[in-house]
Amino acid sequence: MKPFKVAVLGCGTVGGGVARIMLERKEALALSAGRPVELAALVDLFPVRSAARHGLPIGLFGGESDLSGAQAAARTDAILADPEIDLVVETMGGTSDYVRGVCERVLAAGKHLATANKALLAERGDELFAAADKAGKALGFEAAVCGAIPVIRVVKEGFAGDEVLSISGIMNGTSNYILSKMTAEGIGFDEALKLAQEKGYAEADPTLDVGGGDAGHKLSILVRLAFGLAGANRTLAVSGVSDVTKADLRVAAEMDCAIKLICHAQRSGDIVYASVGPMMVKRSNFLSRIDGATNAVRAMNRYSGEHILVGKGAGSLETGSAIVADIVSIARYGERIVNPAARPGPQLRNMDELPFPYTVLFDTADVPGITGLVTTAIGDQGINIDTVGHNMHSGEAAVFAVETMPCTRSSILKAIAVIRAHRADIFRAEPKIFPVLY
Amino acid sequence: MKPFKVAVLGCGTVGGGVARIMLERKEALALSAGRPVELAALVDLFPVRSAARHGLPIGLFGGESDLSGAQAAARTDAILADPEIDLVVETMGGTSDYVRGVCERVLAAGKHLATANKALLAERGDELFAAADKAGKALGFEAAVCGAIPVIRVVKEGFAGDEVLSISGIMNGTSNYILSKMTAEGIGFDEALKLAQEKGYAEADPTLDVGGGDAGHKLSILVRLAFGLAGANRTLAVSGVSDVTKADLRVAAEMDCAIKLICHAQRSGDIVYASVGPMMVKRSNFLSRIDGATNAVRAMNRYSGEHILVGKGAGSLETGSAIVADIVSIARYGERIVNPAARPGPQLRNMDELPFPYTVLFDTADVPGITGLVTTAIGDQGINIDTVGHNMHSGEAAVFAVETMPCTRSSILKAIAVIRAHRADIFRAEPKIFPVLY
Repeated sequence: MKPFKVAVLGCGTVGGGVARIMLERKEALALSAGRPVELAALVDLFPVRSAARHGLPIGLFGGESDLSGAQAAARTDAILADPEIDLVVETMGGTSDYVRGVCERVLAAGKHLATANKALLAERGDELFAAADKAGKALGFEAAVCGAIPVIRVVKEGFAGDEVLSISGIMNGTSNYILSKMTAEGIGFDEALKLAQEKGYAEADPTLDVGGGDAGHKLSILVRLAFGLAGANRTLAVSGVSDVTKADLRVAAEMDCAIKLICHAQRSGDIVYASVGPMMVKRSNFLSRIDGATNAVRAMNRYSGEHILVGKGAGSLETGSAIVADIVSIARYGERIVNPAARPGPQLRNMDELPFPYTVLFDTADVPGITGLVTTAIGDQGINIDTVGHNMHSGEAAVFAVETMPCTRSSILKAIAVIRAHRADIFRAEPKIFPVLY
Repeated sequence: MKPFKVAVLGCGTVGGGVARIMLERKEALALSAGRPVELAALVDLFPVRSAARHGLPIGLFGGESDLSGAQAAARTDAILADPEIDLVVETMGGTSDYVRGVCERVLAAGKHLATANKALLAERGDELFAAADKAGKALGFEAAVCGAIPVIRVVKEGFAGDEVLSISGIMNGTSNYILSKMTAEGIGFDEALKLAQEKGYAEADPTLDVGGGDAGHKLSILVRLAFGLAGANRTLAVSGVSDVTKADLRVAAEMDCAIKLICHAQRSGDIVYASVGPMMVKRSNFLSRIDGATNAVRAMNRYSGEHILVGKGAGSLETGSAIVADIVSIARYGERIVNPAARPGPQLRNMDELPFPYTVLFDTADVPGITGLVTTAIGDQGINIDTVGHNMHSGEAAVFAVETMPCTRSSILKAIAVIRAHRADIFRAEPKIFPVLY
C-alpha cells in the first residue's frame, strides 16, 4: 500500500518528539496503521540545532542553513502544494494569523491536520473544525489536552456508548507542581513558582499556566467534545493559583482536602456549568492525590459511572506520542474519522450558578461570638452548614473554615455582606471561597 | 445512509445492558457513528422475563414464548442467514463448542462480531481473530477486559504512537472487593467471600474469580494486544486470593503495602514475563489505593511513561456501554479496523524467572537468633535485603517479614531450604512469598 506521508511544521519540544518517535518506531507504526507511515519533511528555522537536539537526520529539513521566516514560509508552502503529503503536523504553536492560516490551508489543500495547539483550538476551534469538515479531512488533537493521556480518544470513542455527565481534571502540570510543592514543603506561591521554573515546569512568563488560561483552553476543547458546546473559551470563567496561600493549604488539610486547580464541567439538561479555578478536593476523590506535574481526568458517565485517567501532561516524547497516535489512526481510518460536532442547544454557564458545596475561609479578629455570627448569617441565607472547621486562634487572629451543603456562590456572598454590615471591623481579610469537589 | 443493524445473542446481564443503551441512546449513537445504528433482534430463552428485567420491547425477541435450546438455535441461524444484519453481539457467555461455533459462523457469514466473552477469547482467541481476519471483519472485545474501562482502545489506538513496556492491573473486582473488606474490617477470607456473595459481587461458585482464572483470561487478552503474544492462556502462571490471611494483610500494612490480586506483564526483549497472583503493592503505587469492586490498569510506556486507568470492571450497563462503544466504532470504521495480530517472536515466561523484589513472611518459634539465621541464609544466596520488618513476638510465635532487593523466586526458595536444613523445627508455617510492586 502507498506510504502515508507526514510533514512536521516546527521542530521544537513537541515536533521534535513526533519526528523522533516516527523514525524509531517506523515498523511498529506501519503494523498499527496497516500501511507504511513515513516522515517526509520537517520545517524549522534552525535545522542544525533542532536535528542535534532531537537526534534527527539533517536531510529531513531540506538544508542545513538557518532559515528566515520568509524562507520557512516558502518551504511550508511547498509542502502544502505537494500532493504526496497526506498529513501535516502543526507544532509551531501560538495563535498568530500565520499559524491559523497555515492550519486552514493544510485542510483546504486536502491534507489531514494534527496539532497540539490547545490555544488555537480553543480560540479558533469552530473555524478549524468547520474547515476540516468542509475538506472531508481529519483534525487530530489528542495532544492538545493533557499531553500523553488519551483523553480525547477515550471521550470521543471509548465513551461513544455512554453519556458524559461531568468531567473534572487536573490539566495544568505547572499549577499542580506548585500546589504540591507548597503543600509538601510548606512554602509560599512565589518560592514554589521559582522551583517550578528551575525544574523547567514553568516558563519565564508563567501567566498562562498559573493564571488558569492554559487549563481553560483544555476545558474549552473538552466541553466541545463531551457536550457539543462551541466557543466555550469566550465565556468560560477562569481563575488561577497565584492567590492560594500557605494558610489556605493548612485549612484545606484540616478539612480533609487538597487544594487543586480544577477544570470542572457538568451538564444539567441543556446547560453546561463549567469553570477553572482552585477547588478543595476531598481526600476520598482521586484527584486530591495527584501530585507534581502529572495530569488527571475524572469523568462521571450515565451508564458506566466513574472513570479516571492519569498520565503525563507535557514533555517532548510524551506529547509527541499522542500526536503519533493521531497519525496512526488517521493513516488507518482516513476520512472516516468524524470530527467533533458542535451541537445546537447546550449553553455555557458559570459554575457559580450551580448549587455546589463550598468551603469559606474566615480570617477574623480573635474575639468571642464570631462563629455564632458567621454561622447564623450563613443559615439565614437558607444555606445548610456541613462542617465548621477547627478555629485556629492566635490571640490576634482567628482563622476558621465553614463547609456548606450545596448552595450558590451568590448566597454565600450575601451572607458575607450581612456579616460585614453588622461587624465590618472583625474581618482581617476578605473571606475566601473555594468550591468543594467530592 | 443505510442503518447499521445489530443483533444481540443472549439477553442476560450484559446483553440486556447493550440493548437498553442502544434503545435509549439511538440518536446519539447515530451522530457518533455517522449513520443510524439499529437494534434489530434479540435472542434469549426467556423473552418475557428478559424484556421485563431490562425494560425492552418484547417485539425484539421475535415472540413471547420461552424458547427451547433448539428453538433459540434456529432463531440464531436465521439471524446469521439474514444479510441485513451487520454485526452480532455475543453475550451468551461460556466456552462451549456451540458458543464458539456461533462466533465463527457470525464472522464466516460476513458479519462483524462484538463480545464480552473473556474466557472464549483467552482460550480460543487465535482461532477467532484468524477467522475475523479471514472474513475481513472486525472483532470488538473492549468489554472482555475490565468492563467499562476503555483499556483495549487505549492500548490498541491510544498507545499506537508508543511502546508498552509493562502492564499491571487489578482486573478482578470480586477478589479486590474481598481483599478490601478483609483489610478494612479485619475479617478472614471466608467471611469476606460471604459478604461478596451477598452483595452480588461473587457467584455461588466463586472459583474462577478468587482462583485468579478470570484475571488470567483478561491478562491473556491484554498481552496479545500489547506484546503480540498468542496463546498466553495455555501457560500463564495464575494464583488467586483464597490463601491470603489476616496475618498477611497486617504484615503488608507494616511494610507500607496493600495486598492486591495483580495481573502483571512486562517485556524484556523478546521475552514477556507475566503472571497473576497476590502481590504486595507499595502505597506509593496507585493500584494499592483501588478498593472495592473497582478495576484499574497501570501501563508503563517507552515514550509517555506511566498511565493509569480506573473504572468499573463489571455490571450490566457498565459492560454494556463498552460493547456499544465497539458497535459505534465498527459502524463507523467497518473493515478498516485492524484486529490485534499475534507476532512471531515474543515468548511467555513466568514472572518467577524475572528478578523482582519480594517480601517473605516468616512465622517461626519465638526464640532468639532467628532473624540472624534467616537474613544470613538470604544473604548467602546473593540476595540483598531491603528491609526487615518489625518482629511481632507473641511469646509463642514470631512473625516477621523480609523485603528483598530484586531477585528470583528460586533463589528465595533456596534460602528457605537452607534454613530448613539447619533448623526445620523453627517453622510454624511455610514461609509465604509475595512479589512487591512499586
